[in-house]
Amino acid sequence: MTTPHPLAKKIQVLAFDIFGTVVDWHGSISREVQALYPDVDGDAFARIWREGYRPAMARVRSGWDEDPHARHVVSSLNPEGATPALRQPDGVRGWTLIDTLHREILDDILPRFGLAHLDEAQRHHLNRVWHRLDAWPDSVAGLTRLKRRFTITTLSNGNIGLLTNMAKRAGLPWDCILSAEVFHAYKPDPATYLGVARVFDLQPAQVMLVAAHHDDLAGARACGLRTAYVERPLEFGNAHVKDVSQQPGNDLHTANFMALADALGC
Amino acid sequence: MTTPHPLAKKIQVLAFDIFGTVVDWHGSISREVQALYPDVDGDAFARIWREGYRPAMARVRSGWDEDPHARHVVSSLNPEGATPALRQPDGVRGWTLIDTLHREILDDILPRFGLAHLDEAQRHHLNRVWHRLDAWPDSVAGLTRLKRRFTITTLSNGNIGLLTNMAKRAGLPWDCILSAEVFHAYKPDPATYLGVARVFDLQPAQVMLVAAHHDDLAGARACGLRTAYVERPLEFGNAHVKDVSQQPGNDLHTANFMALADALGC
Repeated sequence: MTTPHPLAKKIQVLAFDIFGTVVDWHGSISREVQALYPDVDGDAFARIWREGYRPAMARVRSGWDEDPHARHVVSSLNPEGATPALRQPDGVRGWTLIDTLHREILDDILPRFGLAHLDEAQRHHLNRVWHRLDAWPDSVAGLTRLKRRFTITTLSNGNIGLLTNMAKRAGLPWDCILSAEVFHAYKPDPATYLGVARVFDLQPAQVMLVAAHHDDLAGARACGLRTAYVERPLEFGNAHVKDVSQQPGNDLHTANFMALADALGC
Repeated sequence: MTTPHPLAKKIQVLAFDIFGTVVDWHGSISREVQALYPDVDGDAFARIWREGYRPAMARVRSGWDEDPHARHVVSSLNPEGATPALRQPDGVRGWTLIDTLHREILDDILPRFGLAHLDEAQRHHLNRVWHRLDAWPDSVAGLTRLKRRFTITTLSNGNIGLLTNMAKRAGLPWDCILSAEVFHAYKPDPATYLGVARVFDLQPAQVMLVAAHHDDLAGARACGLRTAYVERPLEFGNAHVKDVSQQPGNDLHTANFMALADALGC
């Protein structure tokens, strides 16, 4: 056990990015798709589904830029759910749940994988795989250690229901579920990072974002949060090992959550 | 163990009122006030502080009624916090955290108890007693049983930070922290009850509100949620035993969370 980093005394809340940082979206989706549809290349399916996420979010955000008042709630996929889907009459998109974006991308890519025939129930079930992602092997044990000393919360663009279902299934011991859905803004919007500080009535420097993505960490840093990079070299699968070499600017650079707990003296 | 209520199969989420239902605000505040200021009548102090809550909330809500666009975020108490307190220029009040309402009531009642001399740090500390409330003796064990079968979430007018700090201290094993702060509406606004169903992409009838207050349960019932009343006869202390006799309309009426777990087959 090393000496705890001097920051450990100043930080009160650790906010965690989820997809790729806490859970293995690529492996989980590859495995489930391959089990359901053995002829499909699960690795490619997972990567292409995830690749659609950034442009989909960019479209939502650009709608906001054109009309900043458009962030009203737009939900939800399930036709039996409480609230029907809504669109702005002028085509500008309001607030949109990740479940909805994931589903739109899924509908778009299914034909490319010979799965255009899937019916509504099959598509709904497959889309919910994002609620059933497996944690990285060190996540539960590392979070359990970190929780002893810090308040641990999610800070994800995933919606609250998704994050709650995921945590319940994977045993992730969050103190709190914070999401873009709470702030009606997606990361890297400053409203999300500053929102964590506001919720807990803290200074930004008393909050640390933990993530496996440098752009997310840069967004947090610009708001005055502390940052910890976590190496997840297999985020995109064994065939596409990610560069996890150290980059300047983060307060911590750690191999996994056990190493993070060591560094923070937990 | 009795046969589980037939509703148990249909319900997926249990949403809990907090103050009085899960935690003993009267006993906790009485004890802390009396320990800090032995000359003060802790029982009266706790009851009068809590009595200020309904009128304070009514003033906030009436501001909304006059100007429904006034629900922007107004926070926060801590002068060192991330966001300074804001007021609408015309005096209409926007969204207000319970921490702020509790503090305003506290400032108002301190002189009546001979405590007008408390300084800012003492007032801030005392106001945070709402983050340090003790659970009723059956709460943790009952919630732990209920969590095995259901998703358990808070649904409180308390703010997210308050509910998270309270849960961490008292060991309340929530799957999710939902608050008026998420929906920018206070109970009994339908947006709160329907918000739980929306977050989890469920029908209202798949959600059950658990509360020790009939007005809260009536609000949920009007939105199509299921309801369970829990007897908390000592909510206002031993000297002011509450009538907990059964009233019509609720799906369940139980003595405590262990009895609720029995009734729901957990």
